[in-house]
Formats: sequence, structure tokens, C-alpha cells
Amino acid sequence: MQIRELGEKAVLAYLSPFCDQRVGDDCAIMGQLLPDHDMVITSDMLVEGVHFSPQTTPPYSVGWRSATANLSDIAAMGAQPWGLTVCLGLPPTTELDWLLQVYEGLRDCASKYHTPIVGGDLVRSTIATISITAIGQVRIERALQRSRAQVGDLILCSGLHGLAKGGLELLLHPHLQDRLTPPETQLLIKAHQFPQPRLDVIALLQPLLSRSSGGMDSSDGLADALQQITSASGVSAHITWEQIPIHPALTKLSPEQALDWVLYGGEDFQLVLTLDPSIATALIDLDPSLHILGEIVPPHQGNLDFIRLDRGFAHFQP
Amino acid sequence: MQIRELGEKAVLAYLSPFCDQRVGDDCAIMGQLLPDHDMVITSDMLVEGVHFSPQTTPPYSVGWRSATANLSDIAAMGAQPWGLTVCLGLPPTTELDWLLQVYEGLRDCASKYHTPIVGGDLVRSTIATISITAIGQVRIERALQRSRAQVGDLILCSGLHGLAKGGLELLLHPHLQDRLTPPETQLLIKAHQFPQPRLDVIALLQPLLSRSSGGMDSSDGLADALQQITSASGVSAHITWEQIPIHPALTKLSPEQALDWVLYGGEDFQLVLTLDPSIATALIDLDPSLHILGEIVPPHQGNLDFIRLDRGFAHFQP
Repeated sequence: MQIRELGEKAVLAYLSPFCDQRVGDDCAIMGQLLPDHDMVITSDMLVEGVHFSPQTTPPYSVGWRSATANLSDIAAMGAQPWGLTVCLGLPPTTELDWLLQVYEGLRDCASKYHTPIVGGDLVRSTIATISITAIGQVRIERALQRSRAQVGDLILCSGLHGLAKGGLELLLHPHLQDRLTPPETQLLIKAHQFPQPRLDVIALLQPLLSRSSGGMDSSDGLADALQQITSASGVSAHITWEQIPIHPALTKLSPEQALDWVLYGGEDFQLVLTLDPSIATALIDLDPSLHILGEIVPPHQGNLDFIRLDRGFAHFQP
Repeated sequence: MQIRELGEKAVLAYLSPFCDQRVGDDCAIMGQLLPDHDMVITSDMLVEGVHFSPQTTPPYSVGWRSATANLSDIAAMGAQPWGLTVCLGLPPTTELDWLLQVYEGLRDCASKYHTPIVGGDLVRSTIATISITAIGQVRIERALQRSRAQVGDLILCSGLHGLAKGGLELLLHPHLQDRLTPPETQLLIKAHQFPQPRLDVIALLQPLLSRSSGGMDSSDGLADALQQITSASGVSAHITWEQIPIHPALTKLSPEQALDWVLYGGEDFQLVLTLDPSIATALIDLDPSLHILGEIVPPHQGNLDFIRLDRGFAHFQP
């Protein structure tokens, strides 16, 4: 059934079970912040054909990835999530079933991370569009910011990069699956369709922090994160390139492109952190899957020179 | 110049002067709430061809109306605004000048009401799409909610209805301007293109309130607001219909449709409040442009029966 056959009120009645009971007034009332916490906020927009397509992203995954993208921004601040609002622009011919699966993905990801959907909007458009705002809270003296990297910090990464890009390649070019085992294929496709915001790392890190530290997520790629942090902090980085882990499935898929995918692929939603060495070591003790990429060094003394910044995702160019 | 000729980074460089300095991390850090205040949040999406069109809405007005729609939702809770995030989906062929005028309208409306633009997103789309989230803060014991109308409350309205719809009709059918004087035409077009969120009324009302009261904005029409409040509060309303003011310009424009526009036109962004009579009187003393529409009465004892709820704006039906 298409949503134009139902009308707006009936569609909203289908969606209301996914939303927190605060929905119903002109705004949702969120309550007060935790003691000594600051509020953080982030908004993203995703458009069909640009950020997702039927070929690569079933509707449940559209919802999941949309929630992850925003919750990952909350994690990138060292914060804990407080709520999401969801605006959807949809063609009248959208199938109700598609919409419900998007909401199931949104709800399942959000509720895994204890985050209510507290409001939003549903409007007619000519192309499926999702805009999400996430709010969170953090003790400001323990916030992560791009500008807080200090010389001597170790650079940590919360997980592997390039997997989401490898999964996207497999979805766009299914014949490439011949090069991998079924579990390898599943691993990469899952990395693309069901990325996780690394709020688990923040929960481990927060009790260890005594000062604001450097960090962001790698949604636009590992190379971009390294460049953004060092640039905003006025420092450089010495990366031990040979220690950057490359998953063997990526090398099997394309020995030529594997490193490019790791550096520039994006959408792995890992955290790139710059931490005092004692905190970095303590965090790795708690979660051995974190790994050290290198060290923050004074300006012009690093080895980031060969990052090709023109490789980033350019929204408005062909 | 079209934005595809500039690329994303250059476009963002043009937009950054419009935004608060908090922009730059994965989230904006908003700080703490005022003492004893709760946070409120609302999100809206506006799509070209559905919510605005070049014929009726120049780009500066697109920005202004987008900010007003969200700030009006903040006012509708009795809250004061704290910040806006702005997501824009744009075709690559969008003129930079159009985009800058949208942002000027957004910034001018937001800054008139002391509200910083604290973040957002800029992505490629096939149709111009604006999604705004507004956050605000309110003392919860003085919040306005749809469900808080009480029998005996007076129903107040912060201003005239139907003007925005009259202005839209004039823009869609310019020959109708022959029926009006130039100042009347300007009044109606201004009501459509530059509505004001009634935060001025909230500033007067808040010191008078000792309990949470009934209220919402009339963005979906006066009739809708009356219906929503009485339904959510489990009461009815006795409206003195003959006292509902109809601006003479509307009657000149269309004697047959003037009352319909007042009841169902929408987008006037006035406040519909249900207040204890002593507070209502005190508020009218402070701002005589507010007027009384009627009174809240027990269920089934009102006279809202002839509101035609099917007249509301239905998003997904032809």
C-alpha cells in the first residue's frame, strides 16, 4: 500500500508506536540535563540516490545507518545520547512497508543505545529524504573536540577502516563476491549496512578522562579525521603507516585499492582519539580491539604529507 | 554562479559567517540549561514546490519563514529559544546567490529572536529541501501544552488569522490585487512571506504564569488549534464566533472565502492560549492586540461542531 492511499493521519498513526510518548505538542519536552553536563547537538540529512539507494541499502538499513551517523557524532564528542528527532520527506508513492522498515531500523539502532525518538516531521517530497537531529550530554571538562590534540598524545582508533567501503563495492558489483568467502562477504556488507556508533568506547573512556581530549569520528574517512584533528589543534601526527591494519578481505577484494579504502573510504563510524599515553594504555587494557596509529607531534614534524585531501567526498561536484 | 562550480568546501566557507562559532566539531556544544529549566525540541522539513515556490516565496523569505515555523513551535511551549540547526538539500545547479539569501533570511529572523544557528548539514539533492531543528528552554511548571486547557479558562488569540492565506492567494493570482489598496496587498503578502514567531507574547506571559497552561501555535490553522487543544485536554470550547475578527482586506478579497481562510488558512503562526481568566485579563492589559475567542467548557458542551476537520492540509493526498 502506498502512503498516498492512507493519508497523513493514518501514516502518522502507524509511526507513533516508534516514538517516545513526549510526541504530541509543538515541541517534545526533554527534561533537565544531568548535573554538570552540557548539551551537544548535531543534524544530518540523507537523500536517496546520494547517500543510499535500493541496490545497496534495504529500508531497515536506511533507518539503521541514519541513526548510527548521528549517534556516532554524539560519541565523537565523548557524550551520551539523549534523543533523536526524525524528519522524513517522501514521495506519495512510497510504500508504507518501506517506511515502516526504515522506522524499525531507526528504532532498533536508537533503542540499542538507549535513545528515544522524540519527535519529527513527515512531509511530501519528490525524493526520499531523511533528516535527523541528535542531542546528547557531556561533562564539558571531559568532552572530545577536534582542537584538543596535544603533542605527546597517542592516536588511537576504535576499529578497522575500509570495511564499509568494501561492502559498498560488493553491493555495487556483486560479481566481486567471487573473490571472497561467504563470511568475508557478510562481514563487509554488514559493515556497510549496519555500522555501530562507538558509544561503547565512550562508556569505557569517560571514567578515565580528567581533561578534554582530541577526537572525532571517521565518518568521512580515516585520512580526513587525522587531517581535521591535526589542523584544528595546530599540530601534526606521526603515523606508523605499516601498523595501520588492513583486513585481509579487503586485500583479497582488491590488492590495489585496499589501502585507499582504509584511508579514504569513510562511513566506518569508528572513533579517532588523541589521548595522554597513560589513558590510551588504560583504554586499550579495557578494550584490546583499539589500536594505536601513531603519535601527535609538533607542527611540520609529522608524516601526514601524502594524505590526498582531494579524495574526500565532494557533495556538489560530478 | 551555481554551487556545483564552487564545490562543497567553498560553499561552506560562504555559509560559516552565518553560523555560531560553536560550529566545527561533530556536534555543537550548547552549554547548560538555565537553572530549573527543561529543554524542548522541535524539527520541521520544508520542500520546494510543496511548502514554498519561486512564485510565492523569494529566497530571503524561504529562510525567514523556515526560522519562524520552528521558533513559533518554541513559543507554543511557552519557551525561549536556545539554538537552531539547519540542514539543506540542494540541487547542484542551485545559484549561490539563492542560497545566501535563504541564509540571510534565516539569520535575520533567528537573530531578531536572539537565536544562534549552531550547526547543520549541506548535501546534494534533486529538490531544494530545508530541515530545521529548534531547541528551547522553559520552566516546566510554566510550560504551555495542548493537554492543559481547563474548564473555565478563557481562549486567547495573539493576532489575526487568514492574512497569510490571503497573501498566498494574492501571490498565486496577482490579478486579485485589483480588489485591494496597495497597503492592504502589502499587509497580506507580508503576512505570508514574513510571519513572526510570537515570542514577544511569551515574554509578557511567562511572569504571569503560576501553572502550566493550555496552548499551541496556529501553524495548521485556527480551527485545527482549537480542535487539538480541546481534544488533548478532554474538554470542549464555546467560541463566540461573531467575535472572531476578520480583517476587512480579506472580506474585500473574497467575501465568500474570508471566514474559511480565517479558520483553515494556516501559517499565521499566532498563539492560541487557554488561560485562567485573571491571567488572560492581565495579559490583554499588557498587549491589547490579543483578543478573547471564547471559553473552555466541559466535554460536549461547546460549539466546535461545525469545524470541518477534513479541511486541514493533507500531505500525501492529491
